[in-house]
Amino acid sequence: MPRPLIIHTWEWVPEGPRGFVRDVRLRWAAQEAGLPYEVQTVPFEDRGPAHLERQPFGQVPFLTDGEITLFESGACLLHLARKSEVLLPRDPVGEAQALQWFFAALNSMEMVSVPWWFLEVTGAKENGLTGWLDSRLAHLEAVLAKREWLAAGRFTVADLIMADVLRVPKVRAHGRYPALEAYVARVTARPAFVKARDDQVAGFAAADGGRG
Amino acid sequence: MPRPLIIHTWEWVPEGPRGFVRDVRLRWAAQEAGLPYEVQTVPFEDRGPAHLERQPFGQVPFLTDGEITLFESGACLLHLARKSEVLLPRDPVGEAQALQWFFAALNSMEMVSVPWWFLEVTGAKENGLTGWLDSRLAHLEAVLAKREWLAAGRFTVADLIMADVLRVPKVRAHGRYPALEAYVARVTARPAFVKARDDQVAGFAAADGGRG
Repeated sequence: MPRPLIIHTWEWVPEGPRGFVRDVRLRWAAQEAGLPYEVQTVPFEDRGPAHLERQPFGQVPFLTDGEITLFESGACLLHLARKSEVLLPRDPVGEAQALQWFFAALNSMEMVSVPWWFLEVTGAKENGLTGWLDSRLAHLEAVLAKREWLAAGRFTVADLIMADVLRVPKVRAHGRYPALEAYVARVTARPAFVKARDDQVAGFAAADGGRG
Repeated sequence: MPRPLIIHTWEWVPEGPRGFVRDVRLRWAAQEAGLPYEVQTVPFEDRGPAHLERQPFGQVPFLTDGEITLFESGACLLHLARKSEVLLPRDPVGEAQALQWFFAALNSMEMVSVPWWFLEVTGAKENGLTGWLDSRLAHLEAVLAKREWLAAGRFTVADLIMADVLRVPKVRAHGRYPALEAYVARVTARPAFVKARDDQVAGFAAADGGRG
């Protein structure tokens, strides 16, 4: 029997980010693919040498799969996706479609939405990234107005990551994008996402106990 | 004989971005791997339906490899990297190391450096991303102070993309990161990069002629 995957995340976070810490992406992918996994935690406040050895930017998640260790949620997701056709089509054309949209979620959408969000929550007087975010969302809206899934005519890891990028409340509240809104609702209604998110929230809530 | 790869980029761009348009990443990877390729161009100003069909955000590059079509420089690079051990180690541990750093370049470094750069060049009064960029660069400096290459003890596609992200002049001028500076110099001294960049610059310069 193979050793279970180990998904590493924080021991605890404040209420704000609960449900949104990026280990949820890995839990979700493992749930979709039926891959057994355990969750192990590292301290939230103390990001010392042992943590930096595994994640050199002091972030989470990171993954252990036997001898393989990986950081970056994108790299971890791609590693998991290759284990299951549920996540990544095996035919070369379908795989290419899924990969291009997988990278689009991380590098065309999240590259704008996360810095835009960061400026919003840190109280920038004017958010210089708003026009760029609008443009990206409008382009994506045009795509999703014409189809249900990003690649290969069905759910893939590209939808998992794109929906996770887009479900951030501030980003969703930013404009009127009905196809995009319906898409996020459709993807995040999947039982694998609901379990992944609920498990994460429950884990952080359970850790409140030691902090009374 | 296999059909050559086709790398699609702009027909022309102003002088500022010459040498930095992201097709250089694909040319560079193909040069490193010894893969034959052609360059085809699309109009810079007119990003109509035919362009959006290939690149839904109206950007370049995109790639044609026989029946496979791909957009997103990250997806294209990964596709090319899988064709050559020069770019991506074949042993699972080495491949995982290269992949995590490949994603780190795109999603931890470029996700901060490009929006930071965008705010700089669009004249934001205060750049709310400066502290975040500093933190990312400092973390990377600590890694590169201890080793020559990011993964597997040798040049991989992770160095290609990380060096391309970091060689942007404003980012390099931003702070004092000697290990990072030496790393960018080391990676961009590779003949494959020099040819890729020079070919791009020459191509755009040649297109000036039709614009007198």
